[in-house]
Amino acid sequence: MVKVAVVGATGYAGEELIKILLRHPDCKISHVCAKVDKAQKFSEFFPWAVGCLDLVCDNLDINVLKKEADVIFLALPHKTSMDVVPELIKANKIVIDLSADYRLSDVAEYQKWYSAHKDIENLKKAVYGLPELYRDKIKKAKFIANPGCYPTSVILGLAPLLKNKLIDISSIIIDSKSGTTGAGRNPSMGLHFCEVNENFKAYKINKHQHMPEMDQELSKLAGKKLNVVFVPHLLPVNRGILSTIYTVVEGRQVTSSQIVDMYKKFYKDEKFVRVKNDGEFPQIKDVQHMNFCDIGISVDSNRIIIVSAIDNLVKGAAGQAVQNMNIISGFKETAGLL
Amino acid sequence: MVKVAVVGATGYAGEELIKILLRHPDCKISHVCAKVDKAQKFSEFFPWAVGCLDLVCDNLDINVLKKEADVIFLALPHKTSMDVVPELIKANKIVIDLSADYRLSDVAEYQKWYSAHKDIENLKKAVYGLPELYRDKIKKAKFIANPGCYPTSVILGLAPLLKNKLIDISSIIIDSKSGTTGAGRNPSMGLHFCEVNENFKAYKINKHQHMPEMDQELSKLAGKKLNVVFVPHLLPVNRGILSTIYTVVEGRQVTSSQIVDMYKKFYKDEKFVRVKNDGEFPQIKDVQHMNFCDIGISVDSNRIIIVSAIDNLVKGAAGQAVQNMNIISGFKETAGLL
Amino acid sequence: MVKVAVVGATGYAGEELIKILLRHPDCKISHVCAKVDKAQKFSEFFPWAVGCLDLVCDNLDINVLKKEADVIFLALPHKTSMDVVPELIKANKIVIDLSADYRLSDVAEYQKWYSAHKDIENLKKAVYGLPELYRDKIKKAKFIANPGCYPTSVILGLAPLLKNKLIDISSIIIDSKSGTTGAGRNPSMGLHFCEVNENFKAYKINKHQHMPEMDQELSKLAGKKLNVVFVPHLLPVNRGILSTIYTVVEGRQVTSSQIVDMYKKFYKDEKFVRVKNDGEFPQIKDVQHMNFCDIGISVDSNRIIIVSAIDNLVKGAAGQAVQNMNIISGFKETAGLL
Amino acid sequence: MVKVAVVGATGYAGEELIKILLRHPDCKISHVCAKVDKAQKFSEFFPWAVGCLDLVCDNLDINVLKKEADVIFLALPHKTSMDVVPELIKANKIVIDLSADYRLSDVAEYQKWYSAHKDIENLKKAVYGLPELYRDKIKKAKFIANPGCYPTSVILGLAPLLKNKLIDISSIIIDSKSGTTGAGRNPSMGLHFCEVNENFKAYKINKHQHMPEMDQELSKLAGKKLNVVFVPHLLPVNRGILSTIYTVVEGRQVTSSQIVDMYKKFYKDEKFVRVKNDGEFPQIKDVQHMNFCDIGISVDSNRIIIVSAIDNLVKGAAGQAVQNMNIISGFKETAGLL
Repeated sequence: MVKVAVVGATGYAGEELIKILLRHPDCKISHVCAKVDKAQKFSEFFPWAVGCLDLVCDNLDINVLKKEADVIFLALPHKTSMDVVPELIKANKIVIDLSADYRLSDVAEYQKWYSAHKDIENLKKAVYGLPELYRDKIKKAKFIANPGCYPTSVILGLAPLLKNKLIDISSIIIDSKSGTTGAGRNPSMGLHFCEVNENFKAYKINKHQHMPEMDQELSKLAGKKLNVVFVPHLLPVNRGILSTIYTVVEGRQVTSSQIVDMYKKFYKDEKFVRVKNDGEFPQIKDVQHMNFCDIGISVDSNRIIIVSAIDNLVKGAAGQAVQNMNIISGFKETAGLL
Repeated sequence: MVKVAVVGATGYAGEELIKILLRHPDCKISHVCAKVDKAQKFSEFFPWAVGCLDLVCDNLDINVLKKEADVIFLALPHKTSMDVVPELIKANKIVIDLSADYRLSDVAEYQKWYSAHKDIENLKKAVYGLPELYRDKIKKAKFIANPGCYPTSVILGLAPLLKNKLIDISSIIIDSKSGTTGAGRNPSMGLHFCEVNENFKAYKINKHQHMPEMDQELSKLAGKKLNVVFVPHLLPVNRGILSTIYTVVEGRQVTSSQIVDMYKKFYKDEKFVRVKNDGEFPQIKDVQHMNFCDIGISVDSNRIIIVSAIDNLVKGAAGQAVQNMNIISGFKETAGLL
Repeated sequence: MVKVAVVGATGYAGEELIKILLRHPDCKISHVCAKVDKAQKFSEFFPWAVGCLDLVCDNLDINVLKKEADVIFLALPHKTSMDVVPELIKANKIVIDLSADYRLSDVAEYQKWYSAHKDIENLKKAVYGLPELYRDKIKKAKFIANPGCYPTSVILGLAPLLKNKLIDISSIIIDSKSGTTGAGRNPSMGLHFCEVNENFKAYKINKHQHMPEMDQELSKLAGKKLNVVFVPHLLPVNRGILSTIYTVVEGRQVTSSQIVDMYKKFYKDEKFVRVKNDGEFPQIKDVQHMNFCDIGISVDSNRIIIVSAIDNLVKGAAGQAVQNMNIISGFKETAGLL
Repeated sequence: MVKVAVVGATGYAGEELIKILLRHPDCKISHVCAKVDKAQKFSEFFPWAVGCLDLVCDNLDINVLKKEADVIFLALPHKTSMDVVPELIKANKIVIDLSADYRLSDVAEYQKWYSAHKDIENLKKAVYGLPELYRDKIKKAKFIANPGCYPTSVILGLAPLLKNKLIDISSIIIDSKSGTTGAGRNPSMGLHFCEVNENFKAYKINKHQHMPEMDQELSKLAGKKLNVVFVPHLLPVNRGILSTIYTVVEGRQVTSSQIVDMYKKFYKDEKFVRVKNDGEFPQIKDVQHMNFCDIGISVDSNRIIIVSAIDNLVKGAAGQAVQNMNIISGFKETAGLL
């Protein structure tokens, strides 16, 4: 049994990690911590955990952490992971970071969207943890930058088109809708129940911090620099992302069955990507609490529309993090996830 | 046109007052204020109001308030209304206070549930603003203590039984369920969208601050001191209260049609109380955005169950406040409300 | 007082018409009917209406209808309005049809999306009832084809850009999200509570019957034939549509403040269109139960993104229908609506 | 690996059984069936199951069923289970029936609430499958009548009080609130999304078919005949039941800590019952997707209030059914459930 720790256990991603890890056959949660007013049992923060997890959740003590665990999940806010990572890497731990701190390889971009980067050295070592595209690198890695939720839904949705050079890369428009856990667990007026319930809105239009991550990864796939149009929206549901992606085919005619086949082939060995049959489309209900990314495709003359659905807390965060651990640790890739 | 002001305009009750008053044929909103970081148009706090209300909402300035309005609605937090009331009464304004500050005639009770009372003098002048029971007093009043939301649903639900001395007054059990606007507009973990959505719970079991108000009013109706059992619950909806009230008939047999008839007679001249036919029961959907209290009755041998539904923001707060103003000001009682 | 009838009173649009008309100062609901199993009071179908409307709702009897009302709102399913319209027009009634039967001027298009048209003669007389664009025609009309909900949000969102020939008309992509009342009141598996709640999905991608209506109206504005890309989605809320519309500027550079100014000028005399300030965007909460269309604008190099929000039952159906009646009948345009 | 079948796989309880059984370490779903228009893959009815379960779901064929499985879960509507049970018992299968058909030992009661019973012989063999009370009988059983959802929440909530003869058994009042999956998966106007969403109501007041089951089981515990007052309500959430239970202590004074201690002792060996500490209360969120029953206790002079929460689909149906299978089959009782 591998000993794993969750740092940032009181946020939604941390909570979800613990739910998943409790069911994992090959590892044991040995330590949890988070920014807390006082040390309490994890189950006092989350009463569902009574009888499931008997650990105390205290503030981070890096020495305790290093002693207690071999695999460490960091579910910390952006800009704080990089304070913790260096010492864990030095201690030779397997580190899976769910924050954005090590996702952008270009420090200038990081600085533009977040702040100055404080750990450029380890930035170079981070492997972008999208297993469907980078499994081989992940296998050999010890330090993973776990992808963002929106980017996961978008990159998996577009990878086959970009790798096959099918589309005009200047045409990509992404209209995403996310459940409210995506906005985190800190109370604020904008996330107050009565403000979200029965409401729906766009936010951070072309200004969301996940844009540079998408641009970086999609550009890699396309082999040249591209910029997406990205409009996120807030859904009055707890969990789930549905991204509707609009693109234009370049220079030739395609049919929907051709594209569906291409996607099915592209993902044929992937357990966690399910390409829908021609004429069928995903819904967030079908991926909630699961590590799947469901993809549906519509083609109309030279337009391709991709609809991609994930659970933002699972394939978009904690589930994908566990998938990465499974790959690194040589566990069955689906362990704890199916 | 009577000039009215809303103090505490940025809370849910204040917002609802403004929605109702905008439609009122006999009055005009001349002033709004609230505790704010900086003065802004009301419509900057509530974008729905653009094109509807063009007033600036600043912090309370009592001299401006006195100058600008003849009828003043106080939608302030408990314990702060009593700082404002004395001067408004001295200025001979019509004051309708939606807080709990002047609802309890016994200062010891107020102190027990809230804090020491700072305005005992005006406490004696306050008329409890439940029109269906105290219309004559309200007509002559200038200062109204507007009832709480839970008490409104409960008192209207029980008044006919108590006035007719039908039930064992020690038997009253009230199981109430309220929409989340009832908890106010201040962000907190417990009111965060993902904590309320898809959830349901009891809270403040036999400890809710509306209990002494119910006890006081129900005791008045019964003609002797009684104490209720009261369990409020939080519903994942924006608005509405449904109270399920359990009582035991004393000393004789009754049928449901007898009790339904008795209720229909009791409320026969009341526009805003609708007694359901035998076998029919209310739902919160039928009273949302309306000033009605819907009441359904079930009788089973010596048990009477009353189900009572209101919109907590309308009949439970702003609507009832406007109804009180209408009575005092000699407007049609339903003005702005139907 | 003008006597008005609502045909199809038991659907969501019919119900909403009645809610609005009950508050209307210049007219009186004299008749309601719908396809029903047996004649009952309207308030037995909708208990909220007890004490508000005391009419019986029976099946349609055209002679009774003609006798009882001067203005007739048809809130019937598509393909059934055209069975009723001819006789009402012959009887010289003012008819406002909320179905799609008279919206498409091209009968071939109607046949393609619905069925063969049975009343081509009156089709030519129908005026498309979008007051912000066709007020002059509406004023002189007696027969209105009231716009669809999605088209209303889209046409108002795009009219200034198209009239000013600013955009590449082949670039229009519309990503709309609608509350569930938009899908009607007939029970089905897809609209069962647990299937919609906590869910979100796209449906009828590029196949929605509102597409030809948008294409027709947008082409009129552009002065040439265009076809939109249109993906509707189902929101787990009762009411509201938010359309996020993506376009490309043609042949020159614009700034967001230029476009915002242009929109503000275009709609400067319109009570029911509210153009947001630069950097602000609408949410459905701000237009629920109101007849407004709120529009926000984002410009990024040559991309313009328009976000448009309405209440699908109000500006998208019943409210706009009443607005049309107001214009035709010479009432204040906002009567009953503000 | 034990081969298990789910009959009635397309209802919510059937779906949940499959979700749980897919994770079960000791058994394999070998067969699924349901009343269907045509045979299709289970994953065509429930797209979440693509890649998880590859079986076809056809109409029930009792010979196929007997051949394919050793443990058979019947998630059929009431009144239809008893058509299937006799032959399965004759074939010596382990049968766990989630319907109400074998829960009431008194056939007259069954006839009163449902219809004439067609299988009185096997009725006598059925063991009421509430493991916390009847584990020893269940161990030796081959045929289980799996408890109803409301009764599970109520019986577990009251068992310690009744077994210890603490309360006046004529005083029991149960105010329950259930998520909408409890009403089944058949579309109807009352379960249409917009009718349930933002709504709340009581239904079947003192007329719910789960009442005789509660009366029977609580009477057994009390050692004498009792009748409860029972008011169920419909919550606008997918899953979860919270029952607030009101009782009166008989003949002596108790404190809340005494009662909490008594409950903790009563359930000390039970993995799936969690008694909250004094002053703490359950919420449905903490038991969703889990097999727990959480119980909170409030004592005020001679009143005891019990708040009990379960997931209606898990501890209230499919989870408890699997728990019963585990006990019968000698698996770990928590297998597949923690």
